[in-house]
Amino acid sequence: MHSPPPTTTRRSISEGAEELLGREVPILDLGFVQPIDYMGNDFDIVQAARVSYGPSTRKVHDDRGLLRYLMRHRHTTPFEMCEVKFRCKMPIFVARQWIRHRTANVNEMSLRYTEAPDEFYVPALEDISIQAKDNKQGRDGEAIDPAIRAEVARLMRANQEETYAIYQRLAGELGIARELARSVLPVSLYTQWIWKIDLHNLLHFLSLRLDPHAQLEIRLYAEAMAAFTRAWVPLASEAFDDYRRQALALSRLEVAALGRILGGEDEASACEAAGLKGRELREFTAKLAAIRG
Amino acid sequence: MHSPPPTTTRRSISEGAEELLGREVPILDLGFVQPIDYMGNDFDIVQAARVSYGPSTRKVHDDRGLLRYLMRHRHTTPFEMCEVKFRCKMPIFVARQWIRHRTANVNEMSLRYTEAPDEFYVPALEDISIQAKDNKQGRDGEAIDPAIRAEVARLMRANQEETYAIYQRLAGELGIARELARSVLPVSLYTQWIWKIDLHNLLHFLSLRLDPHAQLEIRLYAEAMAAFTRAWVPLASEAFDDYRRQALALSRLEVAALGRILGGEDEASACEAAGLKGRELREFTAKLAAIRG
Amino acid sequence: MHSPPPTTTRRSISEGAEELLGREVPILDLGFVQPIDYMGNDFDIVQAARVSYGPSTRKVHDDRGLLRYLMRHRHTTPFEMCEVKFRCKMPIFVARQWIRHRTANVNEMSLRYTEAPDEFYVPALEDISIQAKDNKQGRDGEAIDPAIRAEVARLMRANQEETYAIYQRLAGELGIARELARSVLPVSLYTQWIWKIDLHNLLHFLSLRLDPHAQLEIRLYAEAMAAFTRAWVPLASEAFDDYRRQALALSRLEVAALGRILGGEDEASACEAAGLKGRELREFTAKLAAIRG
Amino acid sequence: MHSPPPTTTRRSISEGAEELLGREVPILDLGFVQPIDYMGNDFDIVQAARVSYGPSTRKVHDDRGLLRYLMRHRHTTPFEMCEVKFRCKMPIFVARQWIRHRTANVNEMSLRYTEAPDEFYVPALEDISIQAKDNKQGRDGEAIDPAIRAEVARLMRANQEETYAIYQRLAGELGIARELARSVLPVSLYTQWIWKIDLHNLLHFLSLRLDPHAQLEIRLYAEAMAAFTRAWVPLASEAFDDYRRQALALSRLEVAALGRILGGEDEASACEAAGLKGRELREFTAKLAAIRG
Repeated sequence: MHSPPPTTTRRSISEGAEELLGREVPILDLGFVQPIDYMGNDFDIVQAARVSYGPSTRKVHDDRGLLRYLMRHRHTTPFEMCEVKFRCKMPIFVARQWIRHRTANVNEMSLRYTEAPDEFYVPALEDISIQAKDNKQGRDGEAIDPAIRAEVARLMRANQEETYAIYQRLAGELGIARELARSVLPVSLYTQWIWKIDLHNLLHFLSLRLDPHAQLEIRLYAEAMAAFTRAWVPLASEAFDDYRRQALALSRLEVAALGRILGGEDEASACEAAGLKGRELREFTAKLAAIRG
Repeated sequence: MHSPPPTTTRRSISEGAEELLGREVPILDLGFVQPIDYMGNDFDIVQAARVSYGPSTRKVHDDRGLLRYLMRHRHTTPFEMCEVKFRCKMPIFVARQWIRHRTANVNEMSLRYTEAPDEFYVPALEDISIQAKDNKQGRDGEAIDPAIRAEVARLMRANQEETYAIYQRLAGELGIARELARSVLPVSLYTQWIWKIDLHNLLHFLSLRLDPHAQLEIRLYAEAMAAFTRAWVPLASEAFDDYRRQALALSRLEVAALGRILGGEDEASACEAAGLKGRELREFTAKLAAIRG
Repeated sequence: MHSPPPTTTRRSISEGAEELLGREVPILDLGFVQPIDYMGNDFDIVQAARVSYGPSTRKVHDDRGLLRYLMRHRHTTPFEMCEVKFRCKMPIFVARQWIRHRTANVNEMSLRYTEAPDEFYVPALEDISIQAKDNKQGRDGEAIDPAIRAEVARLMRANQEETYAIYQRLAGELGIARELARSVLPVSLYTQWIWKIDLHNLLHFLSLRLDPHAQLEIRLYAEAMAAFTRAWVPLASEAFDDYRRQALALSRLEVAALGRILGGEDEASACEAAGLKGRELREFTAKLAAIRG
Repeated sequence: MHSPPPTTTRRSISEGAEELLGREVPILDLGFVQPIDYMGNDFDIVQAARVSYGPSTRKVHDDRGLLRYLMRHRHTTPFEMCEVKFRCKMPIFVARQWIRHRTANVNEMSLRYTEAPDEFYVPALEDISIQAKDNKQGRDGEAIDPAIRAEVARLMRANQEETYAIYQRLAGELGIARELARSVLPVSLYTQWIWKIDLHNLLHFLSLRLDPHAQLEIRLYAEAMAAFTRAWVPLASEAFDDYRRQALALSRLEVAALGRILGGEDEASACEAAGLKGRELREFTAKLAAIRG
């Protein structure tokens, strides 16, 4: 998308967003995130809240204070008053995780209508890891023999080439219906879409997909969108960081254990008295370590 | 809202929308609809569709043709790529019908936070009608004694004044909690909100609320929003008119009857043979009259 | 609703829910909550999760453990697999707060179709309170002159009677269209609806409407639904209590302050060093008191 | 799922649904649709409508008449009062089309947690067709050389075997993280999910996916669910057929042309006078042929 000559508008503007509009941020080997339009800015969030709470909130809160109050107390509807639109390109397996976020608008490339391009994801060598043992869903951090990484990449690439040749034989030479021929294509194939979402739901998406438990590949897309969001609505992003991203939730049992620790009990006996054990105990121990810094 | 000095942007612009942004359209005695922001234009709808269908659709369809094709065949997702935001003021009973459209974002004035203003809806004399007999939900078109209309307006106004005085006694002099005092206020009280919705869902709202069976009061708000929409996305609005607003749906039985009529049967026996009777027969007769023009 | 003779089914059953089905729980002076149907039980939540995570989760977690893990880590989709339907009767101002929860299905009594009954909410004397000073949205806890409470109730009741007489004059004697006549009716009028929602969204509703900041009147409805939920899905309710209702969220600054306190700093200087001040400081002080028990 | 001994309940029962609950309907070579739970029946739709319209609708409409009225006039909310849950197994490319229906609840098998089974879709020979020429998205009806069909199936199967061997080498022998290894798997791989949706949204899904333009593979799943729906809510299904499935929508131009034809004009000149041409003319001609039967 070449940038058209800037135009004049009466709409709310975000200088930070304007700066980045139209710029493709490369992700993985062939993917990207490209912000293409937005609606609203930090001030529109505040203005929507003042419709609810009345002009007298002006005495109590300045704009930043009110916005932080909204985020802190989960008054989420004013954040729905901003909207953003991205063009994105990503492997199908990433798209499949992404689409689970239902409160969004999507137009995706259809392989019934168009022929699949020869574009597949192969992970960078350093991103090839073995299955984590302690975590059913993730990768292990441990070092892995470079020769194995190379073999993995080679196997993937070879399979992609062979599969794409079969796809071409089916959809091209034999003239088989595209909707059928595409069934051989792997979920490493790149797809594209335009994705539009309001800021509240985007932040919810980010809180899930920036999480260390999210798969690396989708996390990189989330990070690119988080970077745009910081430029677009800096106050909302800051509040999101302070009250959501870097916030810590303590369960009823954890609160009980913490109360005992603050009262002078040692950690082990406080946890036991509070009833924390097994996985929950390990989670609390990790939280305490994080709190202690 | 004073209009700020126009600013420069890289976003998609709609000249027609820009023209109307910020202008309050008065509705009823004290209400209004004011478009305050929008995202996207006709071309963005087309562009989103081309992401799905591939660039080769360019050979088959020009932009207007593709947009009309999408509307005709209910390919609705590209229309979700446009978004609009209105500030609106309306009686509570209108807001209660409006809020039933769930796929929208709303920030409404809260009477827990702010004191209710002395603003109530009294219908214009010519809008005061008696209950329709043939239609459980509507008003009768028949003429009505002007003295009765005047009495109705007088009764309403007097009740509003008296009720508002009680509200002031409760919330003002006695200092009762606003959330409690407001319970005396009638649904003719004006409320305000900011309402944001995507174009697909706006068109769905309009198709229901522009309908002659919708209550007059909400229909006037729908008309104001439809007028904005025509300026904002003229091609989408035209297609909406041709394929939705002025379209006609025929049921299985009606298709059967119409087939017989086209085959030369007279209307009465065609309807009977097709199994149309009672209310469905009356509905079909009305449709036929509309088709015959 | 009289209870029909119990019938046989192949569906998932919740004994606790069956017990309560059809029973009206009275709320306020004339309202009620009546559970009328449900789908799924605790085990269906677990079963849905095992579809995602595979049968091998059985080795790691028993049913209760897995369900608690899901709640703790906000794996929310399995909780959407249960659904519940209530018939409810409540004042319009309560219905207006309630309807803001959009992910639900609703069929509400329409005053366009039916004549309004003479049923209005008058708060019990002990629930009549003055406006809170430190809290723009709420009621004050402080004692209030019983004579004032009596006057408030009297004023409300008198206004309701007078207004209903006008409504009857308009809709009855004068034959004015119901949709117009109803505009005089206050938001204390009782309305009715059937409301259907999935368990995840119900728990979200409950977490907001059981909160002490929610208006007393809607809180009572939430409590009745929470009581049904405890009978219906006891394991999910218990997990909701432990990880949501009685959980505590600490912001980035609060985590920093707590770290210093755990390291031996005194509270005041820890808060100052962490940057907590004003309202956020007061909120943290209250949290610390809650943690200390 | 073995069938447990039938249990007693106070809930609304549908005899037709009970009959089919738990039975797997085989689809394609390895897929299935299995209804596992439901909420509500035809009568609950009617009962929800009577809450809105008041008991006096009983005089005007019997149950079937009211239900048909609701469907005919798109009063959709009472249909949301029924809910159904299916367990389904289908190729990933079918799941990708299916998931676009956002108003539903889903728990899908995750290949981050579990190892992919060796289950891939290979179309039956008679379903292997060439690309349609007049329809960018579909298959051609024309006969195709059986040898080509056999080759296509053979190529697909060989590629699936080879790819699965690579997957096993990656995820098995080399111990690569499952989330990464799965990227080689094709969209013909079978996945599973539990899918829950309300009746209104199910009917919308069916109206799109039973359409001849829907891809054959997903259409077969839609047909299985439509068959269950006929047993579960026979009156709603009948109304859906009469007023939606077999209904015909005429555009503004088509209404104009039909008016002229009914007035005696010949078809060609009526169409021209009404402004129908190109693709719209062909569509109208096909509709007229359908009407004439």
